[in-house]
Amino acid sequence: MTYQNDLFLRAARGEKTERPPVWLMRQAGRILPQYRELRAKFPDFKAFVKTPHAAAEATVQPVDELGVDAAIVFSDILVVPEAMGLNYEMIEAKGPKFPKVITGPKDIDILLDGDAAAAHLVYVWDAIAESKKRIDGRIPLIGFAGAPWTIFAYMTEGSGSKTFSVARRMLYQQPEASHALLQKITTTTIAYLKGQIAAGADLLQIFDSWAGELSPEQYRTFAVPYLRQIAEALPEIPKTIFAKGAWFALEDFSELPYQVVGLDWNTPAAFARARVGTEQVLQGNFDPCGLYAPPADIERNVHEMIRQFGPGKHIVNLGHGVYPDTPLDNVKAFVQAVKGFSW
Amino acid sequence: MTYQNDLFLRAARGEKTERPPVWLMRQAGRILPQYRELRAKFPDFKAFVKTPHAAAEATVQPVDELGVDAAIVFSDILVVPEAMGLNYEMIEAKGPKFPKVITGPKDIDILLDGDAAAAHLVYVWDAIAESKKRIDGRIPLIGFAGAPWTIFAYMTEGSGSKTFSVARRMLYQQPEASHALLQKITTTTIAYLKGQIAAGADLLQIFDSWAGELSPEQYRTFAVPYLRQIAEALPEIPKTIFAKGAWFALEDFSELPYQVVGLDWNTPAAFARARVGTEQVLQGNFDPCGLYAPPADIERNVHEMIRQFGPGKHIVNLGHGVYPDTPLDNVKAFVQAVKGFSW
Repeated sequence: MTYQNDLFLRAARGEKTERPPVWLMRQAGRILPQYRELRAKFPDFKAFVKTPHAAAEATVQPVDELGVDAAIVFSDILVVPEAMGLNYEMIEAKGPKFPKVITGPKDIDILLDGDAAAAHLVYVWDAIAESKKRIDGRIPLIGFAGAPWTIFAYMTEGSGSKTFSVARRMLYQQPEASHALLQKITTTTIAYLKGQIAAGADLLQIFDSWAGELSPEQYRTFAVPYLRQIAEALPEIPKTIFAKGAWFALEDFSELPYQVVGLDWNTPAAFARARVGTEQVLQGNFDPCGLYAPPADIERNVHEMIRQFGPGKHIVNLGHGVYPDTPLDNVKAFVQAVKGFSW
Repeated sequence: MTYQNDLFLRAARGEKTERPPVWLMRQAGRILPQYRELRAKFPDFKAFVKTPHAAAEATVQPVDELGVDAAIVFSDILVVPEAMGLNYEMIEAKGPKFPKVITGPKDIDILLDGDAAAAHLVYVWDAIAESKKRIDGRIPLIGFAGAPWTIFAYMTEGSGSKTFSVARRMLYQQPEASHALLQKITTTTIAYLKGQIAAGADLLQIFDSWAGELSPEQYRTFAVPYLRQIAEALPEIPKTIFAKGAWFALEDFSELPYQVVGLDWNTPAAFARARVGTEQVLQGNFDPCGLYAPPADIERNVHEMIRQFGPGKHIVNLGHGVYPDTPLDNVKAFVQAVKGFSW
């Protein structure tokens, strides 16, 4: 497939580009007035996510409004545990809550996995197909899923947490059961992402939001092998690993078949480049709080960041999802600053 | 002053010791049944903290029960903003909450600072003096305070936060006011810690709990200069900087007059040693979740950690405060594993 603007895919493949492409994590979301209007039509977040035409509309809104170089399908990483049989609620202003959590082998045994679980995620595939139609060849579309460790963390902890000490305790007390659960999540994720590719995703991003809670050794034991399985099972399109807080795992990532490595705003470009080597593309890593600065500061800081990454092998993004109360004009200033840059 | 067991101070000064000393962050706390009994006598956490004989009792409990090589005064880092005039509430199972927050120069102007603020903290100095009496020369006592950035984060955000985006936004939008507030916190902290030394503290630890929320550049601008002021103002006794998540600042710390650098459990010993150089003592960094493992695993893992740090220039601790539901026997196994080690 060819695109009117294929900057993002060329950069993801490691090709030289005249400027780095730009998109924002959570660009389809509350920063946009049209998103807030759309969201208000649904009783709850999950109903919204499960309605393909609405999810597609949210996906396309930032393409029209911000002029980003890539779209990302509007969805949530927690659709996977739900498809496996573990229901969650999204509580306004608080985040996700699982009424029942996984505590041991009996809970794990009854979970669906692989194709049987992914079959419950047709609505995401439909949202991707519908988004592709609406984007109509302008730019590529990113599909995504949570990383197995992050999904595991929610399924065992039951919600967000400052320490994820329940999830991490399970790794120490029940390592075999932990691996069994991680494996079920992984097979489900692979089936789910295969469906996303079939529906038209051009690149896949894996979000390991809670990577930074693990020690380097535990990350190597309980996270990296499953990230490898996912990447190896999906050779068709380029893939991005974004593991927040996992500065210590960059050398591990250099050995995995992900073409792009996302960075949070703590991780200096030179530090990351020294660890991943010369092949992989880096994505990131503007501090989302930097978008609260005056637009003139944003432009200067964005240009400085691009120079620090150097020419080529860089996709501009934030170092985390854009905060919902960021002024829209500042988000636009961010995108325009990248578009106004040239090497 | 000499101690029956001066292992901790000798190690903090960089002297060779037969084994590393050991203590635990939050050792005076809910892991101990006698703490829970004592705590139940007070209507709220703040009343407890403000009662010197009770704080002293909590300080000494882990000395008697666990046999650690250092005591740390029982208190809270948020006594400093309160002494400056910004009241907080400690909400059970939720954490601290500031009914009013700092939003700009007018709020900052009316805050007390320096000696005038520290004068409200006599109860902590009294708790230290009382603790020293009860410890009776057995082991040294650690005093502490929050780092200016972490105190700033609470005073502007109003509570704990996943992102501290309100606090960080202020750094971008009001850099001058931010420096003014950080400076007031710093002068207060210096006066407060001078009083702790006068009351008998043998070493001071600065906790920068939210260091990991800042970019390396912001940390250099808004945190490091104030950490330097504190250390330079208090040359009398050794000092420890524990900045959670600030792996990127280790080289900055190598240039500051802190004798000890605390590490979280993400940061490998060799990584830290390569960045701080050969002079500073490293403290840490056992994963607090590792204490949920069976005691035999704890011993093996503790010994492996000690070997990774190598002989000398190491104080054993966790990489974060001990979690309140950790079984007491496992905490004891941790302390005993260190005591049973020899080079």
